[in-house]
Amino acid sequence: MSNQKVIRVGVIGAGRIGKIHAENLATRIPGVVVSAIADINQQAAQALAEKLHVANAFSDYRKIIEDKDIDAVAVCSSTDTHADLIIAAANAGKHVFCEKPVDHSLDRIDKAINAVSKAGVQCQIGFNRRFDPNFKKLHDLVQTGKIGDLHILRITSRDPAPPPAEYVKLSGGMFLDMTIHDFDMARFLSGSEVEEVYAIGEVRVDPAIGAAGDIDTAVITLKFANGAIGTIDNSRKAVYGYDQRAEVFGSGGMAATANNTPNSSVYSNADGVVSEKPLYFFLERYMESFVAEMRDFINAIREGNPTPVNVFDGRKPVVIAMAATRSMLENRPVKLSEIE
Amino acid sequence: MSNQKVIRVGVIGAGRIGKIHAENLATRIPGVVVSAIADINQQAAQALAEKLHVANAFSDYRKIIEDKDIDAVAVCSSTDTHADLIIAAANAGKHVFCEKPVDHSLDRIDKAINAVSKAGVQCQIGFNRRFDPNFKKLHDLVQTGKIGDLHILRITSRDPAPPPAEYVKLSGGMFLDMTIHDFDMARFLSGSEVEEVYAIGEVRVDPAIGAAGDIDTAVITLKFANGAIGTIDNSRKAVYGYDQRAEVFGSGGMAATANNTPNSSVYSNADGVVSEKPLYFFLERYMESFVAEMRDFINAIREGNPTPVNVFDGRKPVVIAMAATRSMLENRPVKLSEIE
Amino acid sequence: MSNQKVIRVGVIGAGRIGKIHAENLATRIPGVVVSAIADINQQAAQALAEKLHVANAFSDYRKIIEDKDIDAVAVCSSTDTHADLIIAAANAGKHVFCEKPVDHSLDRIDKAINAVSKAGVQCQIGFNRRFDPNFKKLHDLVQTGKIGDLHILRITSRDPAPPPAEYVKLSGGMFLDMTIHDFDMARFLSGSEVEEVYAIGEVRVDPAIGAAGDIDTAVITLKFANGAIGTIDNSRKAVYGYDQRAEVFGSGGMAATANNTPNSSVYSNADGVVSEKPLYFFLERYMESFVAEMRDFINAIREGNPTPVNVFDGRKPVVIAMAATRSMLENRPVKLSEIE
Amino acid sequence: MSNQKVIRVGVIGAGRIGKIHAENLATRIPGVVVSAIADINQQAAQALAEKLHVANAFSDYRKIIEDKDIDAVAVCSSTDTHADLIIAAANAGKHVFCEKPVDHSLDRIDKAINAVSKAGVQCQIGFNRRFDPNFKKLHDLVQTGKIGDLHILRITSRDPAPPPAEYVKLSGGMFLDMTIHDFDMARFLSGSEVEEVYAIGEVRVDPAIGAAGDIDTAVITLKFANGAIGTIDNSRKAVYGYDQRAEVFGSGGMAATANNTPNSSVYSNADGVVSEKPLYFFLERYMESFVAEMRDFINAIREGNPTPVNVFDGRKPVVIAMAATRSMLENRPVKLSEIE
Repeated sequence: MSNQKVIRVGVIGAGRIGKIHAENLATRIPGVVVSAIADINQQAAQALAEKLHVANAFSDYRKIIEDKDIDAVAVCSSTDTHADLIIAAANAGKHVFCEKPVDHSLDRIDKAINAVSKAGVQCQIGFNRRFDPNFKKLHDLVQTGKIGDLHILRITSRDPAPPPAEYVKLSGGMFLDMTIHDFDMARFLSGSEVEEVYAIGEVRVDPAIGAAGDIDTAVITLKFANGAIGTIDNSRKAVYGYDQRAEVFGSGGMAATANNTPNSSVYSNADGVVSEKPLYFFLERYMESFVAEMRDFINAIREGNPTPVNVFDGRKPVVIAMAATRSMLENRPVKLSEIE
Repeated sequence: MSNQKVIRVGVIGAGRIGKIHAENLATRIPGVVVSAIADINQQAAQALAEKLHVANAFSDYRKIIEDKDIDAVAVCSSTDTHADLIIAAANAGKHVFCEKPVDHSLDRIDKAINAVSKAGVQCQIGFNRRFDPNFKKLHDLVQTGKIGDLHILRITSRDPAPPPAEYVKLSGGMFLDMTIHDFDMARFLSGSEVEEVYAIGEVRVDPAIGAAGDIDTAVITLKFANGAIGTIDNSRKAVYGYDQRAEVFGSGGMAATANNTPNSSVYSNADGVVSEKPLYFFLERYMESFVAEMRDFINAIREGNPTPVNVFDGRKPVVIAMAATRSMLENRPVKLSEIE
Repeated sequence: MSNQKVIRVGVIGAGRIGKIHAENLATRIPGVVVSAIADINQQAAQALAEKLHVANAFSDYRKIIEDKDIDAVAVCSSTDTHADLIIAAANAGKHVFCEKPVDHSLDRIDKAINAVSKAGVQCQIGFNRRFDPNFKKLHDLVQTGKIGDLHILRITSRDPAPPPAEYVKLSGGMFLDMTIHDFDMARFLSGSEVEEVYAIGEVRVDPAIGAAGDIDTAVITLKFANGAIGTIDNSRKAVYGYDQRAEVFGSGGMAATANNTPNSSVYSNADGVVSEKPLYFFLERYMESFVAEMRDFINAIREGNPTPVNVFDGRKPVVIAMAATRSMLENRPVKLSEIE
Repeated sequence: MSNQKVIRVGVIGAGRIGKIHAENLATRIPGVVVSAIADINQQAAQALAEKLHVANAFSDYRKIIEDKDIDAVAVCSSTDTHADLIIAAANAGKHVFCEKPVDHSLDRIDKAINAVSKAGVQCQIGFNRRFDPNFKKLHDLVQTGKIGDLHILRITSRDPAPPPAEYVKLSGGMFLDMTIHDFDMARFLSGSEVEEVYAIGEVRVDPAIGAAGDIDTAVITLKFANGAIGTIDNSRKAVYGYDQRAEVFGSGGMAATANNTPNSSVYSNADGVVSEKPLYFFLERYMESFVAEMRDFINAIREGNPTPVNVFDGRKPVVIAMAATRSMLENRPVKLSEIE
């Protein structure tokens, strides 16, 4: 390990997800140095840098882009900045890890794709759930033929608590903000492309979400190119915690995953038999997958192999989300070809 | 018990389901006597009668209808005879238990409903799954408010092996033949009425089923009057056995059922951790529910209470199945009001 | 079936277990007629006979023994009468099904064994748990070599509520009354004989049980002839219900069973994830095993095959219980050879 | 965090467990610096130091003891050195984390206890399983009264593969080498002291282990001061992987844990329903508990609170192991008072 080239990473965005990636890069992945952290909130950048013994903290992300010693950038800022930052980093010859979604506009996504292609840098999008051991196992069972021809795919994805209405207003809508993970998961598990979408969305959890123009409960049906049918069900509020499950069913068999819990204890008394609730939310459930995706990103840089979730994989779920939105509004199945 | 009036039942149809009901009536339900068995195949009627020590076996069902000592009739013959037999039995003042579906024609179902209403007899339709302890528990959790407002309902219903193509041709299609149970289950679990249906159906299991004009794989989405959204997924062939599960999700919590297995053993060796497959098919899985539904039918006769699944409950799933068929053919959501 | 000889059975004892066996014989097993029921409480015999349409009810069991048309006797009376009734029935040439334990005295058991051997009649002891699908599966896994050489056997057997102290006084002690089932299970699962026993017994549940000279909590360790080691843990009171599990571990693998529940539902809300408690007690848990053991008894009579649990199998657990009692009193391991 | 005093740790022993603790201290616990690594094998110390960017690597542990800047020592060398190293570290005023067992001799353990007491340093023994979330939950349920009075405690602890015979020869025997963790767990879960032990040990897995004078299969029964009864079952070889479970049963309820698996997938096909095997061995299963115990050790140093597993906790399991050994050899229950 000692003769391995150190990879220097700049982290842009010191919010919730930026903190996670910065800490994982700094402590969990050998051969990586976090050189700088930038955030428009200078204090946030400074505090995170101190905690992680990072040398530089900036309020201007351009100081990272312009630093020739930095090999790669982790884009953890707000969604509206993603495409620009990918382009800036790629133009500066830096590899890019970017949080999902790439953007709410296909046009801007395509510009980012072009910049990445032209620069020949590595780009990975933060669909971390692919790195969760449960979902990865389902993926592998499909890929190795254990499921046979895939017939039915089911994804359940329910948050423990809805975001505040102000967040909802800027989120692009539940399909772009939340279901986008499930659209990526649908592609990942099926190994096929979605061709048509039918979506039902409703406001059942919080009227304030409806007032903000969004929905909080949805069932989405997908037709895949390989003939499989998929269903996704979403809620912004599962009172028992973060509910993240999937099932693949085909000619050769079926595989399903359960939620993860803080421990395996089962307590029985006169009132019933009680086991633990699911891990509360994505920080708890997916912590290891955040490490794993970053490890793969660094490896891709080191080895020159393709990243496991490339920038095209970042575009597709946005298209599906757009089709889902149109389907919901027009109450009819919508083909992806109508969007693209 | 000894001073309870004996209920005399005639069973029409000595096929697979007729045998089950006749045996359950004869041995498992106190205070019932099976007086006669009729089947157009006289030998089948005779064999079953002998096995169960039933006094009379006929080839002509009218001998049962005309027998003044018979209180109730169990209609277990082919679907195309159901409506006529309900009408004949009702007109003769006999209570009727009738297998599902009542008929493939709403017009004929309505005639049967009228006959039952006019005669004032009891009529119960054979949606036995309502009596399965797993599904009954979900129903009770919804009814007692433990689920809160219902948001999402999921039903998985997959057979272990497809029926022969000849059977498929006469079956009325998968939605009327197989999914009809799930449509009833959706009403039972949700405590609400379906308003709109979107169905995707495909031939993935057996091309012969497609050649017979039917499908073998489906995902159906339901909108309920109470605002809940439902999904049903069906397959004619789950290689691991009969897969019968449901899940209800709402503002107060979630409840789900698992499949039943022949025993609870878990065997671990160097190759993995293996538990039992689901009970093979409906005879194994639902045997006790066949007893329970009949027990309730006999009680309803005895007590004069309403039957738990009345003839109107027999009509609704047929309407949903028709809407699902139209939805699949026209690839659009179909309102039940378009059918009725 | 119709040309099969009818087996006529007399049931002696119309208490809790007598009722179960009488009803199962009368309704669940084809080709059997319950001819008579005897109980020293004539009213109990009469009531049960009426309920099951049994022709004869006696207060004197000898009327059953003397009835030449009766082929078999089910002994469901109190333990102190078992040996005498086996002997009387055998001497009268009748097959005998007898509840456990055969007796509290080895001498009397041996007399019963002799009577059965001399008469050449079938004799089956009511170790019904062998017929439970969970335990039967473990047994089969051991027998078919899937466990390899058996190293460790674990049995958990806990009642939901202790019996009244008056019952305890006449019960022969927990080892003879309750653990005797587990001693039989240990032989059944291991396929080997117990050679040495070490038992710890305590009064933890109810001081009244201690005052009656008995214990209510125990852990028993067994050494088997095949080199396996077994542990049994018992309690008279598991507040969550009847806890009946076992585990077999060996060179080839491990298999374990779980408790049975009334349904498979799992309910998740803000307080936790709740599944059903075990079926309450032996009537619920083992109902089907009571049918199965009686079916095998009747088959053994019909076919002339050995019964699955013969009178020698009835003796061994009594010996183990005696060794366990001595071990507990003397706080040392006790060899079975010290007892026999 | 930035104004927190840095704790400087020296690690003695660069073998399997030394590597784990050194890496965890270096990367997973904020505010800790690993200053030096010592191993009689200088190359091993050097390699580990390089990997973790540790400044010093020594072949002589005394360089660590004599380094005034080092606050604490992690003793990860062979068991026969533990007591001396604790004493040397304590005498030098350093806090000590020491792997289990402290020693095979009570006399030497007592000397280590005295040295720690006299020096007033913190001392923690590496019973890491107490920090596993499964077992910690059982402990908490007992402590918070959810189990009520504890009646029965069961621990299953089986390794996936036996150690080499050479290792066995120096191990002090299975009770001191392997079961010692379970003896500590018994104290931890019961919240009580063991008073008497009865142990059965056999050679069932590997004759070479028997030839080395040890056993590989055992069942140990414990009597606790609080009246509870405990059973431990051990095997050096569970072909399905590392089997680590416990169960606590009392007047208020029961709680049990299951094994941890790499993912929650369940795969069903025509052959059966297959879930994942347990995590292979202690490195996989207990990795997070190694981090957690070290975090608590560092916190105890920082806060001046007692360590969660002190040096007296390191002594007791050795006494129990000695009693178990004598019990096995003499085939009788042995009181701890006979040993102490």
